Amino acid sequence: MTLSIGVIGTGMIGRDHIRRLTQVLSGVAVVAVNDIDRDRAAKAAPEGARVLDSAAELIAHPEVEAVVICSWGPAHQEQLLACIEAGKPVFCEKPMVTSEAAALRVIQAEVAFGRRLVQVGFMRRFDADYRRLKAVIDGGTLGTPLMYHSAHRNASVPEGLYTSEMPLNDTLVHDADISRFLLGDEIAGVEVRLPRRSSRGRDLRDPTFVLLHMASGALVDVEISVNIAYGYDIRGEVSCEAGVARLPERPATVVRDANGVRQAIPEDWRERFIEAYDQEFREWIPAAKAGTATGPSAWDGYAATLVADAALRAVGSGRLERVTTIEKPHLYDAPSAMAVE
Amino acid sequence: MTLSIGVIGTGMIGRDHIRRLTQVLSGVAVVAVNDIDRDRAAKAAPEGARVLDSAAELIAHPEVEAVVICSWGPAHQEQLLACIEAGKPVFCEKPMVTSEAAALRVIQAEVAFGRRLVQVGFMRRFDADYRRLKAVIDGGTLGTPLMYHSAHRNASVPEGLYTSEMPLNDTLVHDADISRFLLGDEIAGVEVRLPRRSSRGRDLRDPTFVLLHMASGALVDVEISVNIAYGYDIRGEVSCEAGVARLPERPATVVRDANGVRQAIPEDWRERFIEAYDQEFREWIPAAKAGTATGPSAWDGYAATLVADAALRAVGSGRLERVTTIEKPHLYDAPSAMAVE
Amino acid sequence: MTLSIGVIGTGMIGRDHIRRLTQVLSGVAVVAVNDIDRDRAAKAAPEGARVLDSAAELIAHPEVEAVVICSWGPAHQEQLLACIEAGKPVFCEKPMVTSEAAALRVIQAEVAFGRRLVQVGFMRRFDADYRRLKAVIDGGTLGTPLMYHSAHRNASVPEGLYTSEMPLNDTLVHDADISRFLLGDEIAGVEVRLPRRSSRGRDLRDPTFVLLHMASGALVDVEISVNIAYGYDIRGEVSCEAGVARLPERPATVVRDANGVRQAIPEDWRERFIEAYDQEFREWIPAAKAGTATGPSAWDGYAATLVADAALRAVGSGRLERVTTIEKPHLYDAPSAMAVE
Amino acid sequence: MTLSIGVIGTGMIGRDHIRRLTQVLSGVAVVAVNDIDRDRAAKAAPEGARVLDSAAELIAHPEVEAVVICSWGPAHQEQLLACIEAGKPVFCEKPMVTSEAAALRVIQAEVAFGRRLVQVGFMRRFDADYRRLKAVIDGGTLGTPLMYHSAHRNASVPEGLYTSEMPLNDTLVHDADISRFLLGDEIAGVEVRLPRRSSRGRDLRDPTFVLLHMASGALVDVEISVNIAYGYDIRGEVSCEAGVARLPERPATVVRDANGVRQAIPEDWRERFIEAYDQEFREWIPAAKAGTATGPSAWDGYAATLVADAALRAVGSGRLERVTTIEKPHLYDAPSAMAVE
Repeated sequence: MTLSIGVIGTGMIGRDHIRRLTQVLSGVAVVAVNDIDRDRAAKAAPEGARVLDSAAELIAHPEVEAVVICSWGPAHQEQLLACIEAGKPVFCEKPMVTSEAAALRVIQAEVAFGRRLVQVGFMRRFDADYRRLKAVIDGGTLGTPLMYHSAHRNASVPEGLYTSEMPLNDTLVHDADISRFLLGDEIAGVEVRLPRRSSRGRDLRDPTFVLLHMASGALVDVEISVNIAYGYDIRGEVSCEAGVARLPERPATVVRDANGVRQAIPEDWRERFIEAYDQEFREWIPAAKAGTATGPSAWDGYAATLVADAALRAVGSGRLERVTTIEKPHLYDAPSAMAVE
Repeated sequence: MTLSIGVIGTGMIGRDHIRRLTQVLSGVAVVAVNDIDRDRAAKAAPEGARVLDSAAELIAHPEVEAVVICSWGPAHQEQLLACIEAGKPVFCEKPMVTSEAAALRVIQAEVAFGRRLVQVGFMRRFDADYRRLKAVIDGGTLGTPLMYHSAHRNASVPEGLYTSEMPLNDTLVHDADISRFLLGDEIAGVEVRLPRRSSRGRDLRDPTFVLLHMASGALVDVEISVNIAYGYDIRGEVSCEAGVARLPERPATVVRDANGVRQAIPEDWRERFIEAYDQEFREWIPAAKAGTATGPSAWDGYAATLVADAALRAVGSGRLERVTTIEKPHLYDAPSAMAVE
Repeated sequence: MTLSIGVIGTGMIGRDHIRRLTQVLSGVAVVAVNDIDRDRAAKAAPEGARVLDSAAELIAHPEVEAVVICSWGPAHQEQLLACIEAGKPVFCEKPMVTSEAAALRVIQAEVAFGRRLVQVGFMRRFDADYRRLKAVIDGGTLGTPLMYHSAHRNASVPEGLYTSEMPLNDTLVHDADISRFLLGDEIAGVEVRLPRRSSRGRDLRDPTFVLLHMASGALVDVEISVNIAYGYDIRGEVSCEAGVARLPERPATVVRDANGVRQAIPEDWRERFIEAYDQEFREWIPAAKAGTATGPSAWDGYAATLVADAALRAVGSGRLERVTTIEKPHLYDAPSAMAVE
Repeated sequence: MTLSIGVIGTGMIGRDHIRRLTQVLSGVAVVAVNDIDRDRAAKAAPEGARVLDSAAELIAHPEVEAVVICSWGPAHQEQLLACIEAGKPVFCEKPMVTSEAAALRVIQAEVAFGRRLVQVGFMRRFDADYRRLKAVIDGGTLGTPLMYHSAHRNASVPEGLYTSEMPLNDTLVHDADISRFLLGDEIAGVEVRLPRRSSRGRDLRDPTFVLLHMASGALVDVEISVNIAYGYDIRGEVSCEAGVARLPERPATVVRDANGVRQAIPEDWRERFIEAYDQEFREWIPAAKAGTATGPSAWDGYAATLVADAALRAVGSGRLERVTTIEKPHLYDAPSAMAVE
């Protein structure tokens, strides 16, 4: 009954997932690992797990029932296609792939296979706060959602390593995906505005302001501030026809002292989403055992790729950049990651 | 149409009331002042006001239609009785008087006069937060109130000047009066417990914990902490049969910075209750013009005296000390200070 | 020492100001009123006030030291110019005037006079929540403000009477003015986006989403929802370089019942801004006594007119519409309404 | 590496723990179950688990490495002693035992064994909110804790089944245990006051107000309301010398609708403490694998028994009832369940 999995990529996120899969969650065992750095793979491998020489070997190994991909983005396409060819369920960290063409190839392969196999690591869909927010909206008492106000704030980013494209390429995808999830809608267009620049980030273009035009007409505005010093702060508020719903503050102790009445703010994404990461695998495991996937799909990964591309175009053009998708295959008709605790 | 008043006592609170009566409120003029320190009175007197040599002279002066007493407590009895004898409405700062016998003399004189003339300075009854809380309870949807949890916290008290009796003699009276107001009830008994002592206040007995047994059986617990460093913080929560209502945080800017998500806390009672002080006079003025009073009454001042006495006995005895009042004269049947904005 | 004023226009807002000026505030007397409907003026006039036949007569009357204009917008230009010609301080309700040309005429007349006389009724600048928010930003600990997120929500609007231009013409001006106030900045351009339309407002174009591009580069986004059912809700959050500050919830009783833990939301703007209306006159009175004005100026009224015009153009063009002002006369160098309680 | 456990008692809580141990947590397997109702045990047994005829047989079974006791309270003593005799780690649901004498026997047996084996099911110590609260207090910046205000509110209790002793016997123990945990202190005395009775609970004595006098002098007040209609609401606030810390609201979506701005309140203890139940076993499993226990101890179970006994005496006597313990064996010197996420 235990799911035997192989993990490709043993960098920071790969090692964290191995910890989670071996120490936190039940019904799963890591039986194989691979990394381009074999020593790193060997060091990260849990007791009893094989260290394999290539991703292809790991995917093909008969003991490996399902795969977790934590390698770098450019390697994902080939690995995903190999998993689909092998008919093995696969969890793939963001970004699913790095181009629209690659995303379409993954979709075509999965559709040809005839059953969902791919889950993409959009962990926010498993966060209890977002799920409750979605439940309130879907409950319908507030009426149709018309606007969604999102803010994505990082305390700081690694100087030099984090470039001005990354707010749109790496950060926006979370807000874009969660907008699609919360509103049950697709993104039809993207605009980008560049507010007054923060002096905290030398050459960094920060903050960034994005408008997502949803297919229904709903409008999403996103503040992305990656260098705001005070903490990691993810905000979201949906304005509906007859009411508004927003994410709560995180449940920190309410302290009254010389700094006022106050609650701590998470320091980083690990602290903020630690339970969501656990939960995305908690739900992936039984689905993978059943030979499929129910979480964020290759379609969701494709949509994210299109939005990032459009956002990068929009920052250059200053105009609304349309997002055009292929017709959605029926394989992706069922909504993803809809469970609410 | 303007109410001409005389102010007795031009210490800190007296001067603040003169400011309020001349610069903030309409329909009132300070025409006479008196203080045991004549120079201080002269300095505090607004332009055109007479400086009179005695409280008695001020009360008797034909231009003075109503009186505001801000002298020290031991002088209040004589001044209140003089006002009643003169048939002049009088606003009297806390404490109304300093003994049960004195309180009874004021009540008897007012009852004999046949119309309410005295308003005591329990300004909390005019605070918008307390009034809204009372409105919720009186609305009845939460059912009968069964308990009231009160906290009274001062950042600090003047060392040496503030003695261990003062939490019960000076501070508790506010919580006692507001308990009677919120619950529409009388206090029937008092218990005092002394928790672990704060090391912040040298010889001071602090904090103090008080239980007020209301006539209805409702139970009130009061935390009095007079040296808690972080601010002036007044909390109150009423537990009813089918729900709970409490005072909100004060409306300070919500800041997100390195100290978390936070709101400032008032520094002192002036900041916290500045609008309540304005409002108690705003309502007193038309009542005084009409030759009477509608705010907290001599009966409320009497009740406060009895509770302070019982609390001081209780801290010595360690037992429940009963509070016994005379039968309530019909003059005091109407509830006091019930208006809600 | 009392300021004798005349009130022009005795409709709803005019009568409310007369109440405030006669019953709430000190140091002021309404000595004359005028309305195009003489009976209405007579009915609204306080005891002892003259009812005059024309606005011109009222402005010119020797007993009238200062004027409050509550007539309809198209009449303002002439009345303001008459006040300036008479050298009398004048408080003018929104809109100051109804065209850019008219605004410039008022500014030119006031500059020629050489002293500020005009205060425009942007009452939000006197609201304690906004003032505390501004104080936090100006305090500088959060760094330079880069974005301001504003939401303006009305429970409902009068069907038929409220047209699709009004969110931009009447409602936006408040958010625009308070953006200028909070950020200490001018508006350089306006964009409008129309989200999915609410089904609650038949033919009404609602909600509206506006971007204000400030001269500094700071970006302001405004949600205007005028039919959102649940209450009158004004939100504002400033994102700075190193922190974020927002308006608090209004101080309503915290109730725990079958609907959760909750606080009431104001029903309408009267409830929300009642104290701000009092305060704008409380500060206007001493300035008017001194023969001048310190609150929102003719320049602020001019800026509001330009923004409304640009917003109406932007909704048609779908593009960024630039706002171009004349050079700011030195008369308006001092910031307006900066006092903080 | 998997811990093989047996579960005694397959009522509601037993079945819930079996679910948790088999479906949620890793590193553990339920290999045996027992219940006085053999059919119920058979139905509850996970695939592959033995159904054993007696608790004694289960405890003695060589495959059972550790035991979870979910039988009714009177059976606990014998089962705990059998576990200790067998040297097997044991998790025991509340109440540990039902008399002081029984508690002492368990302690003596464990002390004689020489290593901790017993963990008692005080799950609140594993709740993230309580742990963060304790971390703030232990952090020391607020100074010594002097008072703790606790409220324990149930929406309703089963009519007829829930008697007037149960608030003190079953409910208070949670607040008592968490008071000891938060303050790092022992309970030296108990007082009980009975406020005005709620009309919602026919013959039920509700609410109940309890004062716990801690050995340090710190004072704890507890409101127990078991029939308050609106939800399951657990509140706690610690007043320290220089500040105050309290449990936050639970992280529910912030909704703005016709009922105000609001957040849902948990319906029952399952919803409120579901994660704490998971966490207590998550920490128990590795300790049990290591042949010991680190969570709430037999000493904590003993203390809870003494407090319940004293509270029942206090409600009869109306007086302070002292709590006297034996000298604390060194086995219990280490604090329990101190980990913070």
